[in-house]
Amino acid sequence: MTVRCAAGIETRTVEEGSINLDPIQAAGRLTPEAMKAVIAWGDGYSVCDHCHKPFRLDYVTNPPIADFHTDLAQWLGMDKSQVVPGARRAFQEVTGALVGKGEPVMMTGMGHYTAYLSVEVVNGVVREIPQTPDHHITADTAAERIEAAVREFGYAPKLLFIDAVDFMYGNMHDVKGVAKVAHQYDIPVLYNGVYTVGVLPVNGRELGVDFVVGSGHKSMAAPAPSGVLATTDEYADVVLRTTKISGDVTGRKFGIKQVGILGCSLMGAPIVGLIASFPAVKERVNHWDEELANHKIVIDALQSIEGTKVASEFPRRHTLTRMDTAGSFDVVARTHKKRGFFLSSALAKRGITGIMPGVTKQWKFNTYGLTREQAEYLADSFVDIAEENGLRVG
Amino acid sequence: MTVRCAAGIETRTVEEGSINLDPIQAAGRLTPEAMKAVIAWGDGYSVCDHCHKPFRLDYVTNPPIADFHTDLAQWLGMDKSQVVPGARRAFQEVTGALVGKGEPVMMTGMGHYTAYLSVEVVNGVVREIPQTPDHHITADTAAERIEAAVREFGYAPKLLFIDAVDFMYGNMHDVKGVAKVAHQYDIPVLYNGVYTVGVLPVNGRELGVDFVVGSGHKSMAAPAPSGVLATTDEYADVVLRTTKISGDVTGRKFGIKQVGILGCSLMGAPIVGLIASFPAVKERVNHWDEELANHKIVIDALQSIEGTKVASEFPRRHTLTRMDTAGSFDVVARTHKKRGFFLSSALAKRGITGIMPGVTKQWKFNTYGLTREQAEYLADSFVDIAEENGLRVG
Repeated sequence: MTVRCAAGIETRTVEEGSINLDPIQAAGRLTPEAMKAVIAWGDGYSVCDHCHKPFRLDYVTNPPIADFHTDLAQWLGMDKSQVVPGARRAFQEVTGALVGKGEPVMMTGMGHYTAYLSVEVVNGVVREIPQTPDHHITADTAAERIEAAVREFGYAPKLLFIDAVDFMYGNMHDVKGVAKVAHQYDIPVLYNGVYTVGVLPVNGRELGVDFVVGSGHKSMAAPAPSGVLATTDEYADVVLRTTKISGDVTGRKFGIKQVGILGCSLMGAPIVGLIASFPAVKERVNHWDEELANHKIVIDALQSIEGTKVASEFPRRHTLTRMDTAGSFDVVARTHKKRGFFLSSALAKRGITGIMPGVTKQWKFNTYGLTREQAEYLADSFVDIAEENGLRVG
Repeated sequence: MTVRCAAGIETRTVEEGSINLDPIQAAGRLTPEAMKAVIAWGDGYSVCDHCHKPFRLDYVTNPPIADFHTDLAQWLGMDKSQVVPGARRAFQEVTGALVGKGEPVMMTGMGHYTAYLSVEVVNGVVREIPQTPDHHITADTAAERIEAAVREFGYAPKLLFIDAVDFMYGNMHDVKGVAKVAHQYDIPVLYNGVYTVGVLPVNGRELGVDFVVGSGHKSMAAPAPSGVLATTDEYADVVLRTTKISGDVTGRKFGIKQVGILGCSLMGAPIVGLIASFPAVKERVNHWDEELANHKIVIDALQSIEGTKVASEFPRRHTLTRMDTAGSFDVVARTHKKRGFFLSSALAKRGITGIMPGVTKQWKFNTYGLTREQAEYLADSFVDIAEENGLRVG
C-alpha cells in the first residue's frame, strides 16, 4: 500500500521496513532524538526565535547552537567550528578563501566529485594524487605529485584535499603521512571526513590537518543538507573571516557575519537535528569496533561464496565495502531470467535494500548501524541467494 | 513547563501556543502536508533512494523532484529552475557566474545583507541605488546610479539586485521600471522575492527580470535552509552550467552535475517540505487580498492610537510593516517600570510574540497567515495595551 504525504509524495518507509545497505544513507538515519527535534523545529526560520546581538547563528543559545559549536570543535580536536548546509559547502568555503583563478589544488584521484567542483567553482585547477594499484593514497605518491605541481606552477598548490575513507572502496588512507608531506610545502590540508566524522573517532590535531569536514546527513544522523567544518585559529582568521563590505552610498555594514558562509549558515530542522543527535553520535563513535565486528559477519559470509572477493582493502577497516562478484553473482546473472536484477530482487524479497539494482560485477554496501541480528540475517540471506542460484558455498 | 527533545533542546511551541508576528518567520511555518513529509523523509540522504542516471537531484522522480522543477519554473514565469539551500545560495550562484574580482554590482540600499555578502564572497564591489525619502527604489535613481557606475568603471555593472519588497519597510519597489533601465545597459536583473514568492503572485517574465529568487523557509512554508532560483534559457547556460573539470591523471569527469551549486543542491527534509507545501503555496498566493484585509484590521487599530504612525508606505501593499510608535508606546516606555520591555511583555501576556523585545520607537511585524479572528484579537490587544497605559485611542 502506498501512503501519500501530499503533492504526489509517497510516505517513505525504507528505514522502517527494510535493512538498508545504501552506502551513503547508512549513517545518516536520524536518531529518535533528532526526529523529535525536527518535528518541534521544522518550521522555516524556527531557530531565530531568540536571536539577539550580534545576530549570528552560532551565538544563539536557545536552542543551544552556541554550545554545540564549542563542543564540536573540541570533539574534533580543532579550535573553531562552523555548521554548513552540506560538506560540499565547507569545501567551497575553503577553496573560496584559499584558491584563486588558475591556481592548483591537490586532490586525490579517489576524491568525491563535490571536492573537484569546489575547485572548479572558483576557477582553480586540480592536480591529482593517483591511487596505488591496491587503491590507496600514500605519502610517497603525494610527495611526487606535489613536487610535480610545484615544478609546473612555480609555487606550491594552495590546498590539499584528502578523503580519510574514500567513497569508492571504503579504504583508509594515510592522512597523517600525506599531511606531513603537504606541510613541508606549506600546503594546508583539508580532511574530508564524510565517512568518518560521526562514525569513528576523529582528531584533527593528532592527524595534523588544517580543516576537518564532516557530513551531517551522511554520517551524523542529521537531516540534509547539513555538515560541519572545523579548523585551527590560524585558518579561522582567513576562512571564517567576517564581512568588510560596506555600501558606497548608505555606508551600511554587516557586523560580524561570516563572508564565506554568507552570514548565518544552517538554520532550522537540519541544525537542531544535528545537535539533537550529537550526544548519541559522540557515544557511537566509541563503538566502532562493534560495527566492524558486525560487518565482518557479512563479509565472511560473502567470502564463503565461491568466486566472491572483497575488492576493498582487507581486512576491512570500514563498514562501506566494495565487493567483486564477477565470479559468482555475475555468472548467475548471465543466464537468470531477471538478468543482473536477480540479486537486488532476491534481496528485496528478504527485506533488504540499498544495493544498486542490476549490478552484479562490483557493488558497494554499508552495514553501518545494523544490529548483530540484522548482520547475521544479512549474512544468511547472501548465502541463501547464492545457494538457490547454484553457487557453491563453503 | 519545558519539554526537552534532547541535548538541551527545548520543544518549540511558538507557533502552536502563540500568535507569532516575527517578520521573517510568518510565511515559513510548515503546512500540515510539509510536516508530514518532513517526518517521513527526515533521514539524511532520504531522497536518494531512487536516484538513477544521470545522477542529479532534479532528475529524481520519486519523490517527484523532477516535476517540481518544471512546475516551479512555469509558475514563476521563467524557463528553468533550481532548488538551493537558502536564497543566499542562489545569490552566490549568480554572482559566482557573472561577477569577477573588482567588478561592480548594482545593489539597492535596502537590499538584504546576504546580497551584499554574495558580492563580497566573489570579491566584487557594490554600487548602491539609494532609497528615496519615502523609502522606495525608483527607476530614475537606478538610472542615475547605473550611469555613475558606468562612468566610474568604464563598463556596465555585471548584475543588478532588486528586492521586490524590502525587509526594512515591507515597501514594494518598481521592479519593472528598474529592470527596464538595467536592460538598456545589458545588465541582468536578479529579483529578490524572498518576501513575495510564495505569498503573492510573481511572474518573472512579466516583470522583465533574468533571475527570480525565493526563500523556502521565509515564504514557501518549507524547512530551512531552502530556496528557489528560476532563470531564462539564456542565463541558464551560464549560471546553471554543468561541470567541465576533469582529473589530470585519472581523467575523471562528473557528468552533468551543476558547478554553481556543487552538484546536487538540496536533499532531504527541506526539499520534500518545499514540494509538499507547493500545492498549498500556489493556492495561497491567490488569496493575498485576504491577507492584506486582515493586515488592515491591525493597522487601522494601531493608527487609532494617538501618536502612532505607519513608517512604511501607506496604504499597505504587504503584511510586513514598520510602525513608528515614538509618539505613543515609546512615551509610555520612558516611565514604565519595565521600560521598553512593557510592550513585548504586554503582548506576551496575551499570547502574542515575534516583536523585538525592548523596542518601542520603530518596530516591524508581519501578520501573514493569521486568520480574521486572530487579526481582530491582535488589533484589540494593541488598543487594550494602549488604553491600559493611558494612551488616547479614537
